[in-house]
Amino acid sequence: MQRLPEWPVERQVVAGIVATALSEDVGPGDLTTRLCVPVETRAIGTIIAKKPGVHSGLYVAEEVFRQLDEGISFEAFVAEGDALEVGTVLARLTGPARPILTGERVALNFLQHLCGIATLTKAYAKALEGTGCVLLDTRKTMPGLRALEKAAVRAGGGHNHRLALYDGLLIKDNHVRAAGGVAAAIAAARRGVHPGLRVEVEAQTFEQIEEALEAGADIIMLDNFPPEQVAEAVRRIRGRAKTEASGGITLENVGAYAEAGVDFVSVGALTHSAPALDLSLELVADESATA
Amino acid sequence: MQRLPEWPVERQVVAGIVATALSEDVGPGDLTTRLCVPVETRAIGTIIAKKPGVHSGLYVAEEVFRQLDEGISFEAFVAEGDALEVGTVLARLTGPARPILTGERVALNFLQHLCGIATLTKAYAKALEGTGCVLLDTRKTMPGLRALEKAAVRAGGGHNHRLALYDGLLIKDNHVRAAGGVAAAIAAARRGVHPGLRVEVEAQTFEQIEEALEAGADIIMLDNFPPEQVAEAVRRIRGRAKTEASGGITLENVGAYAEAGVDFVSVGALTHSAPALDLSLELVADESATA
Amino acid sequence: MQRLPEWPVERQVVAGIVATALSEDVGPGDLTTRLCVPVETRAIGTIIAKKPGVHSGLYVAEEVFRQLDEGISFEAFVAEGDALEVGTVLARLTGPARPILTGERVALNFLQHLCGIATLTKAYAKALEGTGCVLLDTRKTMPGLRALEKAAVRAGGGHNHRLALYDGLLIKDNHVRAAGGVAAAIAAARRGVHPGLRVEVEAQTFEQIEEALEAGADIIMLDNFPPEQVAEAVRRIRGRAKTEASGGITLENVGAYAEAGVDFVSVGALTHSAPALDLSLELVADESATA
Amino acid sequence: MQRLPEWPVERQVVAGIVATALSEDVGPGDLTTRLCVPVETRAIGTIIAKKPGVHSGLYVAEEVFRQLDEGISFEAFVAEGDALEVGTVLARLTGPARPILTGERVALNFLQHLCGIATLTKAYAKALEGTGCVLLDTRKTMPGLRALEKAAVRAGGGHNHRLALYDGLLIKDNHVRAAGGVAAAIAAARRGVHPGLRVEVEAQTFEQIEEALEAGADIIMLDNFPPEQVAEAVRRIRGRAKTEASGGITLENVGAYAEAGVDFVSVGALTHSAPALDLSLELVADESATA
Amino acid sequence: MQRLPEWPVERQVVAGIVATALSEDVGPGDLTTRLCVPVETRAIGTIIAKKPGVHSGLYVAEEVFRQLDEGISFEAFVAEGDALEVGTVLARLTGPARPILTGERVALNFLQHLCGIATLTKAYAKALEGTGCVLLDTRKTMPGLRALEKAAVRAGGGHNHRLALYDGLLIKDNHVRAAGGVAAAIAAARRGVHPGLRVEVEAQTFEQIEEALEAGADIIMLDNFPPEQVAEAVRRIRGRAKTEASGGITLENVGAYAEAGVDFVSVGALTHSAPALDLSLELVADESATA
Amino acid sequence: MQRLPEWPVERQVVAGIVATALSEDVGPGDLTTRLCVPVETRAIGTIIAKKPGVHSGLYVAEEVFRQLDEGISFEAFVAEGDALEVGTVLARLTGPARPILTGERVALNFLQHLCGIATLTKAYAKALEGTGCVLLDTRKTMPGLRALEKAAVRAGGGHNHRLALYDGLLIKDNHVRAAGGVAAAIAAARRGVHPGLRVEVEAQTFEQIEEALEAGADIIMLDNFPPEQVAEAVRRIRGRAKTEASGGITLENVGAYAEAGVDFVSVGALTHSAPALDLSLELVADESATA
Repeated sequence: MQRLPEWPVERQVVAGIVATALSEDVGPGDLTTRLCVPVETRAIGTIIAKKPGVHSGLYVAEEVFRQLDEGISFEAFVAEGDALEVGTVLARLTGPARPILTGERVALNFLQHLCGIATLTKAYAKALEGTGCVLLDTRKTMPGLRALEKAAVRAGGGHNHRLALYDGLLIKDNHVRAAGGVAAAIAAARRGVHPGLRVEVEAQTFEQIEEALEAGADIIMLDNFPPEQVAEAVRRIRGRAKTEASGGITLENVGAYAEAGVDFVSVGALTHSAPALDLSLELVADESATA
Repeated sequence: MQRLPEWPVERQVVAGIVATALSEDVGPGDLTTRLCVPVETRAIGTIIAKKPGVHSGLYVAEEVFRQLDEGISFEAFVAEGDALEVGTVLARLTGPARPILTGERVALNFLQHLCGIATLTKAYAKALEGTGCVLLDTRKTMPGLRALEKAAVRAGGGHNHRLALYDGLLIKDNHVRAAGGVAAAIAAARRGVHPGLRVEVEAQTFEQIEEALEAGADIIMLDNFPPEQVAEAVRRIRGRAKTEASGGITLENVGAYAEAGVDFVSVGALTHSAPALDLSLELVADESATA
Repeated sequence: MQRLPEWPVERQVVAGIVATALSEDVGPGDLTTRLCVPVETRAIGTIIAKKPGVHSGLYVAEEVFRQLDEGISFEAFVAEGDALEVGTVLARLTGPARPILTGERVALNFLQHLCGIATLTKAYAKALEGTGCVLLDTRKTMPGLRALEKAAVRAGGGHNHRLALYDGLLIKDNHVRAAGGVAAAIAAARRGVHPGLRVEVEAQTFEQIEEALEAGADIIMLDNFPPEQVAEAVRRIRGRAKTEASGGITLENVGAYAEAGVDFVSVGALTHSAPALDLSLELVADESATA
Repeated sequence: MQRLPEWPVERQVVAGIVATALSEDVGPGDLTTRLCVPVETRAIGTIIAKKPGVHSGLYVAEEVFRQLDEGISFEAFVAEGDALEVGTVLARLTGPARPILTGERVALNFLQHLCGIATLTKAYAKALEGTGCVLLDTRKTMPGLRALEKAAVRAGGGHNHRLALYDGLLIKDNHVRAAGGVAAAIAAARRGVHPGLRVEVEAQTFEQIEEALEAGADIIMLDNFPPEQVAEAVRRIRGRAKTEASGGITLENVGAYAEAGVDFVSVGALTHSAPALDLSLELVADESATA
Repeated sequence: MQRLPEWPVERQVVAGIVATALSEDVGPGDLTTRLCVPVETRAIGTIIAKKPGVHSGLYVAEEVFRQLDEGISFEAFVAEGDALEVGTVLARLTGPARPILTGERVALNFLQHLCGIATLTKAYAKALEGTGCVLLDTRKTMPGLRALEKAAVRAGGGHNHRLALYDGLLIKDNHVRAAGGVAAAIAAARRGVHPGLRVEVEAQTFEQIEEALEAGADIIMLDNFPPEQVAEAVRRIRGRAKTEASGGITLENVGAYAEAGVDFVSVGALTHSAPALDLSLELVADESATA
Repeated sequence: MQRLPEWPVERQVVAGIVATALSEDVGPGDLTTRLCVPVETRAIGTIIAKKPGVHSGLYVAEEVFRQLDEGISFEAFVAEGDALEVGTVLARLTGPARPILTGERVALNFLQHLCGIATLTKAYAKALEGTGCVLLDTRKTMPGLRALEKAAVRAGGGHNHRLALYDGLLIKDNHVRAAGGVAAAIAAARRGVHPGLRVEVEAQTFEQIEEALEAGADIIMLDNFPPEQVAEAVRRIRGRAKTEASGGITLENVGAYAEAGVDFVSVGALTHSAPALDLSLELVADESATA
């Protein structure tokens, strides 16, 4: 089985997620396929878009079929981020019919979700085009699928915020209160963090912004500020820290945030509420094959 | 930590899914919390609905915090399927601040997704009320989360179709072709399946329905039949098999399917495209506590 | 290493069971082989029957050697269910001597047990030949080996009952009592179960049979009924439900049960008490080989 | 849940085996129990012998129920090796009815198998009583269950041979040939093995016995020697090495082997062919309890 | 078993490492202890320093004994970073003798290694006292033990560099060459990295330093520069980037590096070559106890 | 990727340790390499000794790269135990640059540690050359790395003591006290242990030596006896048991122990305090390659 030239996610991570998914759906075995499909039957399958959108995730589908049977050949016709029209053929599979049938639903479940994210991300990214404002994702992801979802955001033209609690610092309101104020929280963070990490602080008022600047925050997250207040905040900060707007951002108002001059906008809906993109796997018997 | 009286999903299954999610988000550690929040700080947190909907999933949130720290007390105020208004308090947590902060995002990611499913399911269920037609989910789920999602469907008033490839028989078009026809496929299935399983067959034409009936199918799935054709199919089948409509069913037309007399409708969107329900976890310092 | 054309058990399941077994017996290493056998020595081994019987399990032996060394070639000469005479060669292995020696005992432990089950099952199956009564296995299996044992039952001419607690409904006496009667239990089961599952109920008296029929049971298990009472029960049921006899069934009386007209007999001894079939793995040095 | 005072097998090992068994039988859930038994129902169960025999394995049953629900109280009334009469109550369980019903089959599968081994072992041990000859088990065990089976052999009055390939040296015929003779094999083994391990060699002829003695073998296994030849071998060895008889030993002839003066007899049938001992778990509702 | 108030490493991570270690040393069981020590024997053990040094790691020892038996009480008398004299009692254990004996070696193996690292780190930290130069560790750690070793560095007064390849950016010579130059590498890194991460680049010449500054590096690692060249580099950089010296740094010359004005020095020997600190676990029988 | 002809440690064990190490260092991904190194870049790397020493561990490095990418070709130029000079090339890797860069640190961490052990062991072995006294390692190892470290000891010319608590009997002072004396402890051990294991007892006084001899100990460990007392002990024992000296043995005095006539000396420092050997992985771009 030939491999896609490049995977946007560490192979071991993909393999682990796919193994969990196959264990969930196949487990002790695919009853219907085993009983109804002769072992020697071969088939050709094509994955086809039934709605327009943006592609992400064929590498996961490939891994699904690889884990089921190394004898399946998988050809990908689109790359991460490619546009899909109705009828676009994303990939073709050739091999024994049984594992192709067994893996169909799991592969599509991944692919429809990831294309859904890429498609929604692209819409946001277009609304920001030419503004210099960077579109970020969040940690509001489907548990267990984050690495794949973040790759789908990249495919759709977004950028990633930190991956998890362990590779970035983000001091939120609750941390501030527990630490006894913004200055204390930032000082504590600076003392313990490794030299390669910046310190980001969430602010909910103009006062907190001032405090954060004085304490030396590298990035200030403006939490639930409407666009006009974002503009005011950016003016006051005067480049002393990077700025990120978060909370309440929609396709309709994201452009207004960018115009307000913020460096980053982060949008949870990219990953927690993107509807699936409609795709199907169509099989034909492989007449030319001899088992 | 007291436990919810009843969990709708096997505890070991929930524990495994939650462990994966915590490993994904926390992994080697929550940098911000460890650096900024003193270990002896205690807190009280409440999970609050910010949009109306239907509840499912507090048992998962409970397990998130239990795995992080057994010293957190978790009180649930709503049961599976309860209605949520804006401002409804779903649960209260009391305990050390650090693990509450660390688990917040993972707990909410589960809860918002599961409440989203229960809320959407309730809308479909209401549209079917009084019709006798049963609302079913599908295997179009987020990989790794199926057992939880199926419980959310039940919470919203839906019923579950088979859980996976191993606990039910569903002969689809592709199986039929590979087996050499509907009759052959059904015969093969009957020979091998254990006595407690029914045989369901997908039909795409009236001809296939006839074939399936003659071969003794227990359930016939009408694939992408519009409501009026469903009505015709139900008339022809005359109770010789149960009927299920699938494909293209929306909130708008689901009532028409029910009126057509079908026994079951199955809707993939319940699990693959339900938007998250907006919830938040609000923390206050626990003044009364001494560490 | 070439693969057997078809495995009767999901490959991932077999791989998991074999890995556990190798970890148990080999763990940190096979001391004797490592110390006494030069790494470059090659060998040919044959697996030979020392008693007559029925074959099941070569696919597991194959997986044992595959996990130890992909350089071993494994040729199978018998299929699932084939008869074995004294001296029948089941398979031949060619490759490095070390992993062949290391895997010998684990491979034989699987194979002797599974052939033992197939052999005992065949004896029961013969006693039922021509009666139309179907021989079923039970969940009385060796913990961890059920999927393999159920495949061995099939190889011996038996059929499988449900695999586990999750893919079939069987309401036993204890469930009935807890639910407040047969009717209540069956009603509860019907409400929650997915549409593809039948409801089976255990009955210990003729009264319970009546109750079960009225409540709409699909299958009635006659628990510890002697053959003549089974005949009476079948008469009373008159085809309104399928019937299964269970408990106290031996090679001597199984024919009487079939004559009593029951649809299924289930026999725990097939899996919990089948003696091992005597097999051996005989090695010769591979003279023709150059390491 | 109180614990048995002493377990004959490392707790982590037992926990791992039990987890595998529960995953196999319960997996995503016990459908029947969840649907038919109300969550608040409590029950008392007793495990009762239906045939006479020797007990081994309650500690495993205890672990089964502990993993399912820590709220089950488990009282054991017999210790490892105790005799069982028809009707002997081995243990009593009190707690929620659901997990007791769910764990019943898995617990009994372990217990019936382990009691079967202890019972068969006791028969062999009795035949050797007073002879000074020690009864040993082998590595011919059910894959995955060896540690438990070896404890059952001890409960029945037998002794354990090495546990696995990693904690003992046994040079068999095949090793000898690959090493180029008995002397070479023993020398190689001595060079590499740690100082606390003895060297055992299998001999099939009197010539090989001589060779082994000269090479300094600590133990000589007499492979498939009939009793009279064992006697001759023991005479020739004159205490220069310990002796073990193996192969073809039955309840009928084991006494003759002992009389022949051999130090150990090893019997594979103890673990590979012991029939299950008949036990049952009888439940009564716990009237006194309030959930 | 009471817990230490604060652990410097995520509990799940510690639990995983300890489980691996116990599996390695105990596996199927501690033969000597099981055979020689009666199950009811109780003991008191004290962990005592036999050489002076700095403490790190009691939390790991605690977890070792917790996993073996929850009935062991563990009292810690020193905190992370405390000085140890010959004879200092670090902790006292009370409980059943068997698991205390079984866990002794594993607990000491962790503790001696971690105290060794803290002790060596303290020596380096003292040499830097008052200079403002920060002592960093590296990724040159014992595979599998990094999180613990990095906590030991903190206990000894050092600071941590990035934990792994996933939470920090460090562009080394090889990356530069592959990217086609320092500017290209830094630009590529900036494009893809999340906003909270700084970009560090390794420089081996003054030319590369200039290039890195122009490309906007946040931190420059001076690789194998002797102290006088470090001083020159610091002068040229003029605060435009942070500086780190790495390679060839010893206890003897680390002070000179600090005087050269570098912000950070990183020392691989802290973790890859620290000798174990001599500790022992002394047991006395617990006379007062009744099992 | 071609494989080394022989591995000194079971492949599954090596694979497990390497997977843990890669998960620790790479986890969700190598940020720097993914961002800065184009996927199609190929490279050649050589592993070079920067200090003289003894080699052990290339098989582990090989497995590191094999797990990262099967497309890397790995050629080893030295065998276990070979001497290394400054500049010796141990191995050459050819393949895609990304996984080579990603695996570099993990591979070197293993290799530097294992070569360090082999090098230190060789120094002890040389000091014993010609004396007939055997150099043994201990269980004082880095948790998780024992099997590899014991192979490194063999590479350096040492021998292994037991691997773990499960494959050897060593009755220490604490066991003796708990058992009620040396005689009782030895008797208990003999009763339960399998026939292939010897009984070793630790003695701290001449009195205990006598007791151990009378009780039939096979090996006596002389704990912290200085060389002259070892000589006296060996005289008194007169070959009735093997002797092992342990505790306080250094490169300076190990010869004196050998001269005292002891059979074995065991040295914890071989594994717990060997400094890393300095090695590096140098990469050059692979000009001849086309991706």
